[in-house]
Amino acid sequence: MGFGRKVTIAGAGKTPFGAFPDKDLRALSVEAGKKALADAGLEPSAIQAFYLGNFAGPEFTSQNHLAPYISTALGMTGIPSTRFEAACASSGAAFFHAYLAVSAGVYDTVMVLGAEKMTCQPTPRVAEILGGAGDCSGEMRVGSTFPSVFGMIARRHMHDFGTTREHLSSVAVKNHENGALNPDAQMRKVITLEQAMKARYIAEPLNLYDCSLVSDGAAGVILSAERGDVLVRGVAQASDYVALEEKADITTFPAVREAARQAYAMAGVAAADIQFAELHDCFTIAEIIAMEDLDFTPRGRGGFASLAGETRRCGRIPINASGGLKSKGHPVGATGVGQICDVVQQLRGRAGERQLQRASLGLTQNLGGSGATCVVSILERI
Amino acid sequence: MGFGRKVTIAGAGKTPFGAFPDKDLRALSVEAGKKALADAGLEPSAIQAFYLGNFAGPEFTSQNHLAPYISTALGMTGIPSTRFEAACASSGAAFFHAYLAVSAGVYDTVMVLGAEKMTCQPTPRVAEILGGAGDCSGEMRVGSTFPSVFGMIARRHMHDFGTTREHLSSVAVKNHENGALNPDAQMRKVITLEQAMKARYIAEPLNLYDCSLVSDGAAGVILSAERGDVLVRGVAQASDYVALEEKADITTFPAVREAARQAYAMAGVAAADIQFAELHDCFTIAEIIAMEDLDFTPRGRGGFASLAGETRRCGRIPINASGGLKSKGHPVGATGVGQICDVVQQLRGRAGERQLQRASLGLTQNLGGSGATCVVSILERI
Repeated sequence: MGFGRKVTIAGAGKTPFGAFPDKDLRALSVEAGKKALADAGLEPSAIQAFYLGNFAGPEFTSQNHLAPYISTALGMTGIPSTRFEAACASSGAAFFHAYLAVSAGVYDTVMVLGAEKMTCQPTPRVAEILGGAGDCSGEMRVGSTFPSVFGMIARRHMHDFGTTREHLSSVAVKNHENGALNPDAQMRKVITLEQAMKARYIAEPLNLYDCSLVSDGAAGVILSAERGDVLVRGVAQASDYVALEEKADITTFPAVREAARQAYAMAGVAAADIQFAELHDCFTIAEIIAMEDLDFTPRGRGGFASLAGETRRCGRIPINASGGLKSKGHPVGATGVGQICDVVQQLRGRAGERQLQRASLGLTQNLGGSGATCVVSILERI
Repeated sequence: MGFGRKVTIAGAGKTPFGAFPDKDLRALSVEAGKKALADAGLEPSAIQAFYLGNFAGPEFTSQNHLAPYISTALGMTGIPSTRFEAACASSGAAFFHAYLAVSAGVYDTVMVLGAEKMTCQPTPRVAEILGGAGDCSGEMRVGSTFPSVFGMIARRHMHDFGTTREHLSSVAVKNHENGALNPDAQMRKVITLEQAMKARYIAEPLNLYDCSLVSDGAAGVILSAERGDVLVRGVAQASDYVALEEKADITTFPAVREAARQAYAMAGVAAADIQFAELHDCFTIAEIIAMEDLDFTPRGRGGFASLAGETRRCGRIPINASGGLKSKGHPVGATGVGQICDVVQQLRGRAGERQLQRASLGLTQNLGGSGATCVVSILERI
């Protein structure tokens, strides 16, 4: 791969994540985009291309052709303006392609923005739309939803590795503890391990507190070849089969392993060098598997490490200090860039009560569907 | 812009366009992708990244996360696999971004594939889904559809420039004449000028023969830094306002003018050097305006030039020798790459009865919505 210029993040901004009946998808996007521009000290005219990550705007809101719909509202016309879709990794994919273009010297300054508006649809329809990230001709046709897909994954992980109900709930407890300190989080509520373990089932063995939220929100970053205070040391995107039935093993995601391998190689670091991470905890089991696929723990030991407190803010490798998708919220298309904004905030030492002590090298992992897409980024304070 | 390697098209393949109740979106895509690979003499393992153009697969078919869903079915796993959406210019946008990556040296060999499956929905729902490419909070909310949006555009063009009913119909007659010779076209039917002029109205002044078709289909190309027989001399993507009411003038599309300007500059050619073109005739008036925005004719003279026969296969600048969207079909997400496949076929001298005599430098113009996105490509036989 012949790209080679340094790429920095010169600005970052996001909306709070939550339910915002008075703000449509474009209004949320414009709010995040303006914050990112202001943070970078740039005018819209400085942006040479617009990369939008959005999973299912047309299904949630009817509006399609969202990239120019949003970029023109931000005062940017004429430039290439494109929507990237890769399920829940949509804005991760947008970030990856934007990185390539800046690194390769095509553009000097671009905006990457992720957005989703979900709370305008009733929950059964939300589940149906999210199901589109799985195999609609197979698992979804016979009645699966994403909680049940990850329920099967959790069950298998428990069977193969001895992961327990307590392990899963320890992820939820930790992420709620962090999210309670995040003013932009959707659910700022500390929960006890007992509460987390005894919640009602959504898709056994996953209960209410194992599942992330249905959210509205947007997040934007400005990538620049020159002026930013955060360096993108590595970023990689990889893919795999969409349907659960096509995967050789449902307790590990090859796309995550491959994206991590490439991102570590680009950055010239090992898993042990990463000081903190924002992982894609769409379900508690997903955070546990991500810990393993990223080599933060050995295979099968993610749940044990979580229960032992290794991923708390004071632990060996703090994970989801933002509160994660679980507590912060999961506006699908916004999540990838949202994670990057959260890491940038930590790297800059501006995470308030959630600020980590060791925060100069962080990682984000953005997952699409049940592992068919993954984008891993490694960011460093300059 | 610092990209600079030559990019060639090493393989091209498409399905016929039409209504195929027995083939789903993935089956059509796999068919086109395999043809492109076979044409290039490459195995799936040679492909380093997958660029999918698709407008509204999730709304037409429920299935989202389409890029890995399709690429894995083609035997490609692990690689970055992403869906690009820019309304009817979705696969044009995918082609543009793929070009950037190969030209900049990020990848040597990638696949760009466009696909759409539309005939599975009833016509009113198709109109609603297509409406998502316009402004759903404005023009579409008050009852517009795309035929009525382009109807307003046509009316204004008639008012400002003296374009006539006969002018519009001359585009339809010519495209049907060409499409009748194309074995892959959806509607192989010669029509008379009288038939075209007297057809029933869809949205006045546009009648049945002014409107392109609802279609299923897929088209793929392999971009290569080395081995192809067609050179991509220029390609550019530009954007503009989505809503008609935000445009200063609805009879010209700034995104088309900007993309054309950049593509001509990259290629080092002028409009007069282009020997033939595939233009985005979603409606007859769109072909007329494209002729003007691309500088094939002066402003306001597109209809006159069409009626005078200048765009016929034997004319000064043959346009839509394939039959165009009007006769060949318009599976929205497939159209951009489909146009490129048609130009490649002409450049290679393999267009059968439609073969043009002067066919060494061709252009494609792929439009999104009512002009909010445009991708222009210039291709040359090596």
